Amino acid sequence: FDSLFDAAKELAGTESDAKVPVELLRYLCDSYQQIVERHTGKPFPQKPADQLRGAIEAVFRSWNGPRAIAYREREHIAHDLGTAVNVQAMVFGNRDDNSGTGVGFTRDPATGAKGAYGDFLVNAQGEDVVAGIRNTEPISELKKKFPKVHAELSKIFSRLETHYADMCDTEFTIEQGKLWMLQTRVGKRTGAAALKMAVDMVRPSDLGITRAEAVSRITEDHLDSVLHPQFAGSGYSVWAKGLGASPGAAVGRAVFTAEEAVEMSKGGPVILVRKETTPDDIHGMDVAKGILTAVGGKSSHAAVVARGMGRPCIVGAGSISIDERGQKFTVKSRVVKQGDWISIDGTTGAVYAGQVPTIEPDPHSGHFGKFMQWADEFRGTFGVRANADIPRDAKAARLFGAEGIGLCRTEHMFFAADRIPHMQAMILAREEKDRRKALQKLLPMQRKDFAGLFEAMDGFPVVIRTLDPPLHEFLPKREELMVDIARFPHLGGGGKKELAEKYNMKAGDLKKGLPELLKRVEELHEFNPMLGHRGCRLGITYPEITEMQARAIFEAAVQVAKKGKKVIPEVMIPLVGSEGELENQKAIVTRVAKEVLDKEKMNDLHYLVGTMIEIPRAALLADQIAQQAEFFSFGTNDLTQTTMGLSRDDYTKFSGEYQNLKIFKADPFQSIDQEGVGKLIETAIKLGRGVRNDLDIGICGEHGGDPSSVEYCYRVGMNYVSCSPYRVPIARLAAAQAAIAGADKSESMRTA
Amino acid sequence: FDSLFDAAKELAGTESDAKVPVELLRYLCDSYQQIVERHTGKPFPQKPADQLRGAIEAVFRSWNGPRAIAYREREHIAHDLGTAVNVQAMVFGNRDDNSGTGVGFTRDPATGAKGAYGDFLVNAQGEDVVAGIRNTEPISELKKKFPKVHAELSKIFSRLETHYADMCDTEFTIEQGKLWMLQTRVGKRTGAAALKMAVDMVRPSDLGITRAEAVSRITEDHLDSVLHPQFAGSGYSVWAKGLGASPGAAVGRAVFTAEEAVEMSKGGPVILVRKETTPDDIHGMDVAKGILTAVGGKSSHAAVVARGMGRPCIVGAGSISIDERGQKFTVKSRVVKQGDWISIDGTTGAVYAGQVPTIEPDPHSGHFGKFMQWADEFRGTFGVRANADIPRDAKAARLFGAEGIGLCRTEHMFFAADRIPHMQAMILAREEKDRRKALQKLLPMQRKDFAGLFEAMDGFPVVIRTLDPPLHEFLPKREELMVDIARFPHLGGGGKKELAEKYNMKAGDLKKGLPELLKRVEELHEFNPMLGHRGCRLGITYPEITEMQARAIFEAAVQVAKKGKKVIPEVMIPLVGSEGELENQKAIVTRVAKEVLDKEKMNDLHYLVGTMIEIPRAALLADQIAQQAEFFSFGTNDLTQTTMGLSRDDYTKFSGEYQNLKIFKADPFQSIDQEGVGKLIETAIKLGRGVRNDLDIGICGEHGGDPSSVEYCYRVGMNYVSCSPYRVPIARLAAAQAAIAGADKSESMRTA
Repeated sequence: FDSLFDAAKELAGTESDAKVPVELLRYLCDSYQQIVERHTGKPFPQKPADQLRGAIEAVFRSWNGPRAIAYREREHIAHDLGTAVNVQAMVFGNRDDNSGTGVGFTRDPATGAKGAYGDFLVNAQGEDVVAGIRNTEPISELKKKFPKVHAELSKIFSRLETHYADMCDTEFTIEQGKLWMLQTRVGKRTGAAALKMAVDMVRPSDLGITRAEAVSRITEDHLDSVLHPQFAGSGYSVWAKGLGASPGAAVGRAVFTAEEAVEMSKGGPVILVRKETTPDDIHGMDVAKGILTAVGGKSSHAAVVARGMGRPCIVGAGSISIDERGQKFTVKSRVVKQGDWISIDGTTGAVYAGQVPTIEPDPHSGHFGKFMQWADEFRGTFGVRANADIPRDAKAARLFGAEGIGLCRTEHMFFAADRIPHMQAMILAREEKDRRKALQKLLPMQRKDFAGLFEAMDGFPVVIRTLDPPLHEFLPKREELMVDIARFPHLGGGGKKELAEKYNMKAGDLKKGLPELLKRVEELHEFNPMLGHRGCRLGITYPEITEMQARAIFEAAVQVAKKGKKVIPEVMIPLVGSEGELENQKAIVTRVAKEVLDKEKMNDLHYLVGTMIEIPRAALLADQIAQQAEFFSFGTNDLTQTTMGLSRDDYTKFSGEYQNLKIFKADPFQSIDQEGVGKLIETAIKLGRGVRNDLDIGICGEHGGDPSSVEYCYRVGMNYVSCSPYRVPIARLAAAQAAIAGADKSESMRTA
Repeated sequence: FDSLFDAAKELAGTESDAKVPVELLRYLCDSYQQIVERHTGKPFPQKPADQLRGAIEAVFRSWNGPRAIAYREREHIAHDLGTAVNVQAMVFGNRDDNSGTGVGFTRDPATGAKGAYGDFLVNAQGEDVVAGIRNTEPISELKKKFPKVHAELSKIFSRLETHYADMCDTEFTIEQGKLWMLQTRVGKRTGAAALKMAVDMVRPSDLGITRAEAVSRITEDHLDSVLHPQFAGSGYSVWAKGLGASPGAAVGRAVFTAEEAVEMSKGGPVILVRKETTPDDIHGMDVAKGILTAVGGKSSHAAVVARGMGRPCIVGAGSISIDERGQKFTVKSRVVKQGDWISIDGTTGAVYAGQVPTIEPDPHSGHFGKFMQWADEFRGTFGVRANADIPRDAKAARLFGAEGIGLCRTEHMFFAADRIPHMQAMILAREEKDRRKALQKLLPMQRKDFAGLFEAMDGFPVVIRTLDPPLHEFLPKREELMVDIARFPHLGGGGKKELAEKYNMKAGDLKKGLPELLKRVEELHEFNPMLGHRGCRLGITYPEITEMQARAIFEAAVQVAKKGKKVIPEVMIPLVGSEGELENQKAIVTRVAKEVLDKEKMNDLHYLVGTMIEIPRAALLADQIAQQAEFFSFGTNDLTQTTMGLSRDDYTKFSGEYQNLKIFKADPFQSIDQEGVGKLIETAIKLGRGVRNDLDIGICGEHGGDPSSVEYCYRVGMNYVSCSPYRVPIARLAAAQAAIAGADKSESMRTA
């Protein structure tokens, strides 16, 4: 249909649908009817009732179209909800130049600013506006061209906002000067707009929503988008310009189709570049960090969808010319090929070449700060901590409102270039004596890291986990070493030198050293590392490691406390499955703590020793474990893996089939599997609190940043969640929403 | 002390302790006192009361000696039980030639034959008999040398048996013609003797024990020893001869110290060869397949301990000369070095060079058959099945009394040399079409295997598990392939030919073929194979595999049923964690079953589709899974690994420390971890039976052959256990003993 119409416009020498002459339209009608007959095998129905029924059925059928299904999946809309069809008499916005059509928002959906917002086209039908084919005029122009219509529309907007108590989007048509409202619904908005509107609409404003309603209206995506980074400084040369349609900065490699976006996003961030987007592009937009289109206005498909998704988006960048088949676009003489880096600013509409540095958003400013304050009031005593391993992350976490560190993975510190040689020396040592020597070198480094965390968290608890991963993770890869040994006799001097550098050996030592190294690597090789010699099992077989870490923790604590800061160390033992394991490790920690604190006469420094609950046996025997543990922290990553017998890394091989077959209700590594893993969590809470009714219970798996999981943690009576620093506001919001949703019982569980 | 005494005997020119003259004994007394003073720093106590107290304290202290601790561990005796000391006046068997000492059994502890048994020495003390230093005389000789004593001893033996209602062992001393009984206890015995005695002593015999008592007296070790193999045929040239002290045939490599036995037994079977054994050798005897000593009688340490352990043992093989330091022994001119193979027959006392072939015991003969029949009467409806993958094992299982196959691991069939190429072709195929072609070749092979199992199990159920292990197990090892690719450019023609054979490629194809193979191997590589793409996850992503296996099962079933046999197939889906997975696989199985049975008009052939419960989530959601499952079988190997987050293979790296620290009550891979894993098992049974009250529930992990685990399975209401064919009688016994121990409630749970 479209190519015939394009041909007609070409024949008529116009780019406007409305200017195609009647004769050509008649001809097109005949041609369209033939197309229908060819494809359906039946002539085009001539009775209006048949046409209407066909149109109604087509709408109903669209419920099960692949695009609709994909949309519902993304928006978590139930597939059995069904749809309705509204039948209205047709009005024509393309009747003449006293007609027109537009899309209007009662407030600015990008910024939340009060006042009508939108665009319209004279002598056009609605799809021309939405499709972004013709460049639209802003709604403010309506006042000049159709003053009566504009006044009427303003009254309607005001009435709609009062009725819905929210910002609405509308579609309208003007037929020969008369305004017809086609539809309205609560409008999609950017995160920043959502926050501003939520705050603006609260009593005593004219819309008068409650704070609870305001808090409940903000979604994960809204917050996520305002937490997006911005470009650092200015002065980068703008390369092309479009309309900023969804705010935030995005950097990625250019891709030109949704399919490529999905494929390439596996390897890193991508920016989807399209002439215009259609619903067929949704999956590509979903994985892209940002979206850039050459045509369309702020109400075009690309703009609306990107805002809903919280993705930075630029539309209508007319100066770029896209060659989809050639997988490139050009701006003047410059060519950007697929895979080249570009940076886009969805707030200003600026496109930059290469990777522009970004800076972090300030989560304390303006509406955001006020909003989060309200959220925190609802959240009550339920805490939100952050997972942070280094002082920089700890500082970011505090900025985002974290009330402590829920997980510091000490091993992450050992991977640094200046530390890994000591770590390797420790692992390769055959005797305790040599191991202690290497640990002695690591001690001051760990102490310094911990001191940084304690300083950043002044007054808030810091949960430090003892060494967790299997030791072989710190050594060269087994198969790589085997290959290098096989290659070794055939290498020239240069190759040998390279090898010597790689393994930090003298070239002359390689012949003997490589097989020796391999021997130790083989000894440490594990069939199932996830279920192997790791966690507290390491600390039990090498107590000197736990000892060194405990010493670093308490020496750092003493050092920071002496500066007048309040230090609350919580030492966490990982992978515990029995009371005996925790008892063993706790004894080491408390002995070292006593030594250090005695020496400094600081025995009033309060600390806790607790454990991760991350294997099913720990949950099943939580009453025994609580005899020793002063706190529990659910490691839901590992708990999910062991409870489901499913390795997260290996699951990727068949997760596609499992999603298609809907084996699990949701991705269990995204949202806590409440009916399976949840049973163990609830068992552990009940058993643990049965022994210690004030047991502090939290979660430090990645689920701690997932709203539905946070809601679950709140509901089952945990004391806090811990998540990555950037997810902290989202977790705070999710907890507030859970509280508003009426989980008062959980609050009493925590404070009992 | 010993070396001084040896020197005294040398001076006196005698080998008999009793013939050392009084002057030398006086001298020895002085020397002994000096030794004591030198070591204790105190003079030897001269007051008898002090000496007595010292002796009593020494006995009490011995409770915590390392040998006593090791013994209690082996025999599962509680460490906090404590011991008692009996103080008796001393009598002297070495006073003169009218004196003597002996060890007597009221029945033959090796065969169970009625009548006194044992040995004695004239003019000697008890330790001379037990230590096996002097060659003893059989107790029948007592009648000639001490007829009065013999008559009195016979009366005492009869009284002891009546009192204890069991065979007793005794120690006695004759002092100048008068008999003194030093001690008695219920005697250790071989498995064969234990069975014969248990059957002989049951009412209406004079000892009059009940059948329940008889069944309760037999241990796992007893049964295990009579199930030991015997040498096949005769005609092998006997190389040395000793006293058969503990029956059964054993083949292994010679080792000369307990430490070497422990070390070398990791690599294969060993025979411990010692001049004589002492309690210090217990750990070596425990790991040895058999024990051979040069000196000692049937009551020597080696003999008594070996019988208790059920190890074949020869003692007093005087013709062998042991050079412990030289790690060899000689028989005439022939030398056996450490690591050489020898074979020993603990029944006849014959020693053979090399590896003599063995044959299996007949579990239906004599007392064994009668005893097992009694055991089965107590066992009631609780079944014992066997894990068997091939018809030969299935036949052995029936012979041992298995009532069906509880687990046939179909993948074991694929590793055969003629099948693995098809398996590999299937895995390497990129398209379903090519996969189906390879599967088509495997179909007739699987059908034949299944037909063999169905024939062997005529009238009993056969549980067949669909493909379980990750596919990469069937491909060459990743790191080996990487090394071969690295070596390839440097290989000569011979090396390339070898490589071509190894990978079943043409030499010319290697250059391209090896990297291609590696690519696929890399794709299939898994971080944690145990938690990876295996079990039902394979059948879900490659439904054609399940389809082929179902077809092979039902075509085989039809084929065997047509011969007039009763076929009961039970198709088992592994690694299920959600109802959806089982539903998916069950649909394939029932569809194929219907196709095959419809075609053959055999729709009355009854079959079941069920699942393993081997990951915690399956146990937690057993009610949902029971909506689909017609039976449950606990895969306790994997369930233990996932519940404890502990890989069995990797646990070996630190199991030593864990045992020393007593982290777990018992090895969780030997005996079910009842307090942890058991909670999940009990949850699953309750939830499963809540949905289907007739749900058939069994266990097919290796725990099915462990008596305490069998007792547990009985107690929690399972319907059966399945174990390796040779453990079937042990499982039957354990179930009978559980029933006798009064688990009547469990019986009603099963038949409700």
